[in-house]
Formats: sequence, structure tokens, C-alpha cells
Amino acid sequence: MNATVVACCQLAPVLGDPASNRELTAEAVTHAAARGARVVVLPELVSSGYVFETRDEASACAEAPDGETVTSWRRLSAEHGLVIVGGFCERAAGQVYNSAALVDHGTLRCVYRKAHLWDRERLWFSPGDAAPPVVATRFGRIGVMICYDLEFPEWVRLPALDGAQLLCAPVNWPAAPHPDGERPAEIMKAQADAAVNRMFVAVCDRTGTERGADWVSGSIIIDPDGWPLAAAAQGAGPVTITAACRLDDALSKDVSPLSNVHRDRRPELYQRVAEPVSPAVPSGSSPA
Amino acid sequence: MNATVVACCQLAPVLGDPASNRELTAEAVTHAAARGARVVVLPELVSSGYVFETRDEASACAEAPDGETVTSWRRLSAEHGLVIVGGFCERAAGQVYNSAALVDHGTLRCVYRKAHLWDRERLWFSPGDAAPPVVATRFGRIGVMICYDLEFPEWVRLPALDGAQLLCAPVNWPAAPHPDGERPAEIMKAQADAAVNRMFVAVCDRTGTERGADWVSGSIIIDPDGWPLAAAAQGAGPVTITAACRLDDALSKDVSPLSNVHRDRRPELYQRVAEPVSPAVPSGSSPA
Repeated sequence: MNATVVACCQLAPVLGDPASNRELTAEAVTHAAARGARVVVLPELVSSGYVFETRDEASACAEAPDGETVTSWRRLSAEHGLVIVGGFCERAAGQVYNSAALVDHGTLRCVYRKAHLWDRERLWFSPGDAAPPVVATRFGRIGVMICYDLEFPEWVRLPALDGAQLLCAPVNWPAAPHPDGERPAEIMKAQADAAVNRMFVAVCDRTGTERGADWVSGSIIIDPDGWPLAAAAQGAGPVTITAACRLDDALSKDVSPLSNVHRDRRPELYQRVAEPVSPAVPSGSSPA
Repeated sequence: MNATVVACCQLAPVLGDPASNRELTAEAVTHAAARGARVVVLPELVSSGYVFETRDEASACAEAPDGETVTSWRRLSAEHGLVIVGGFCERAAGQVYNSAALVDHGTLRCVYRKAHLWDRERLWFSPGDAAPPVVATRFGRIGVMICYDLEFPEWVRLPALDGAQLLCAPVNWPAAPHPDGERPAEIMKAQADAAVNRMFVAVCDRTGTERGADWVSGSIIIDPDGWPLAAAAQGAGPVTITAACRLDDALSKDVSPLSNVHRDRRPELYQRVAEPVSPAVPSGSSPA
């Protein structure tokens, strides 16, 4: 079985400077391709930076999917025979979205708009309302979601059920304390996302300080058992990580002779997961 | 804020010998109470052992909820002022279930029947069809599920949405290889269960060899950030772990000034999680 080299280019984009960020990403993608990468993941909002203070600031950086940033990724993907998944600040119909594009060998295959907006993002971005896309590529079926989306296992389940062998997730993980000897919590959750679905997960984080904000800088490529294949070293700064992934390993969901993580689901019992949240029952036992 | 001492009594039950197992658990529960425990979790199927080879073997160990095992737990809980959550082999209406009981100060508050049966369990047990119960106790709201259930995040979401501050999970985790320096995969998934819901999770595993089968022996008590508060040492054998848990810490689901892990859910977009599984789309992009 052939392995596909997946790369995550952990970068430090410049806030509000899409032209510089295109140069930065072009250099990193070219370098990753030279190392054998066939699928390259870029950070969330790598076109624009992250720490906006007003909606106008976000809007000023926003581009359509046929704008210069995604066009540059299409060109790079054609030149090097790549799939590229990257985050960009998208303008569409008067709205601004925190989006990710998947381009494959010169063609824009999908744009995904982040559905779960983190903290102040809701002040400038509109949330997406469409499920994470899964795109059939030469390398296998690839799903796309963004950062905080990964912390909603219901959301991760959707591309997995749609057959994603690899989930690519541009992120900007804000730095937060965690106990000595533990990985950052975001990584632990991404490991579980991979394991409960038996699919590969490639997370590309950003790095660098922006308006005083720091980042986990925790790019990681995870196998279908939930174990890291490659990870950015703590405090590594800008770095490209790569891992050879046998994406067909994610086709089988078997975890024992009779157990299968998708077939063993009981969807008929999960109705309440998709219902509007009611307040927690104040006392007594819930119906059992 | 008061802390509640939670204990997990990791035991080595004797296959097919409920009377011996009642002695074993009584001794462990009494010991845990003496250490200050108010909530005590026992392993899955601690009444019967696990490695059955026929349905008749399982059936021969099965007891009703008013049988000797759960009655002994009621007595212990009254004597020591405890909540006890333990797994037992249940007989009901001609079926055999892999069940757990929650008893509180002498009273049986709920019986939960495992909904996600692992591997050969389906050969002797019937699956439960009811959601994990959440019971209001003097110490806080406590949810119950069993072992492989923890690997279905949709299932874990249900008691969390019902306000569980602590999820108690009797388990029998079969030993499996994992990379050096990593925790067993089951633990990583349980950590994510806690973190994505901001609730405490107390897992009580078994230990000992049974018909050649070994166990993770990985009992663990996890805080709402997903970090271990107490864990059985690798290869510890029978041991009781305890942790003082400020269960009210699980009442707030806030993770940043504007973010909340439950309020940020988009249940209206999760419909397909609760639909019968259709085969993965064979090619092209899913609707986006």
C-alpha cells in the first residue's frame, strides 16, 4: 500500500498583510513539496492573521475564493502536483467568514466556512452552516474543518461517516496553561477525534506573537489509532512537519474481530444530540 | 466550595463466583469509605467476571437488581453514607444485560444497561436501549455508562447535556499495545470525553488475568479540563485510587469570555449523527 506524505507548514503570518502572507506560504509549500509532500496543510487565517479588533479590520483582509490567495494556492498545487488545504479570510455576499479552501492540482475543490466560532471571532465572522466537505482526491478522501470545530465530536463524526480518510484542520490554537508532562488539551481532543473514527487527522497550527497573543504552535499529524506520527516540537516556531500516511489504513473501522467503531454506533438512540438544548433537569433522575 | 472524594476500586473479580466477588467488593468499599470516599465506583461486571464462553455461563451469574449483589451495595451505601456505582451481570425478562447500578444511601436509584456492546459481548448480552441516566445525589448530578460506551462521543454528550457533573464508568478495558510514553488509547478518549463536556469522569477498570485475558488496569479520575487527578499506576493490580473533586466546577461550561462548550454547539446541524448510516459517498465531494 502506498503512503502519502502529508505536511503541515506551521507559519507566523503577518496581521493584515495578505501579500506578505502569500509569499510566506508559497515558500513553505514549495519547500514541503521538495520534501515529498503530496498533501500540504496551512494554518487557519494564514492569509490575514488572527487578532482582529474590529469587523472592519477583518473585512479589509477578506478575499473571495477567486482572489489572489486561493489563486496562488491553485497555482502552487498545479506546479507541484499537490493537494493544499489552507485557511483564509473570506468575503462573500457582504459577509466575512473564517474559511478554508481545498485545492487539488490547480482546481478549487471546496470552500468550508467554520461553523463553531471561537470567542471574539463571532464579533467579525459569520458562522458557516454547511457540513465539513469531504473531497475525493488522487490520494484518498480528504475532509476539512477549522480549529474549534475539532472540539465538537458530533461535527467530526460527519466527515468520518462520509468516508474521510484524512481530516485536514487549519487551526490557530491560543496558548493556554496545561499541566507539566501533558500535551496541550487541543491535541488530546484531536487524538480522540482520530481514534474514535479511525481516520488520520492533520492539524496545522500557527506560531509567532500577534498583538500580544501567543499560540500553542502545536501542529500534529495523527494516525487512525490516535497516536502522533509527527508533531512540532514545543516552542519550535515556524516549521514544516511531515509524515508518510497510508491513508487506506483509515478505510477499515474494525477494532476487534466483532467490533467496528462506525458499525457499532446506535444512531437511533442519538436523537437528542441534534435537538435544541434544553436546560439540565433540575433534580431527580432523567428518564432511563 | 466543598470537594467530594471519589474513589475507584480496581479489583480482580473471580469468574463465575458472585459470592466471592461480593466479599471482594465489600472489603474494597469499606476501605474506600475509611479513606473518606463519598462516591465509590466499581468495575464492569464485578459481580461475575468477564470472559464468558457461552450465553449459559453469563446467564448462570446473572442477578436481578434486587438480587444479592446490588442488595449488598445498598447495604454498604447506607452503612457508610455513600453513592456506589458498580457493574453487574443482570437478568431481566429472560434477557441478560451488561448493567450498572447506582445506589445512594441504601436506595437503588437507577440501573443502566450497556448500549454499545464490545466484541463477543453481543453473543451473550442484549444491548440496552435507554440513554445513560443522570441521578441527582447529595454530592451532585452523577451520570452512568459502561466501558465501550465511552468511545461514542454522541453517547457521552447525552448525560453531559442532562447536567451530569461526574460521569461514573465501570469498565473492563482489554489490554492492548500502545506506543511507549503514551497512555492507553481508552484513557486518551476518556480525557477528551471529560474535556469536551467540562465534566468529571471516573473510570473504574478491573485487573487480574482471566482465561488468559489481561486488562489495562487503568482506573482514572479526570477533571473537567481533561487532566488526570488520580490514576492507577501501570501494573498496579488491585488498588483504590481517590481524588477530591469539586463537582461544582463542572457546572460552568465556559472556556473563554465568550465561549462555552455546550452553548457553542450547533445541534441543528448535527441531524446526520442521528440518522442510519449510509455508505460513504464513493467519489466526488459531499454536499458543502
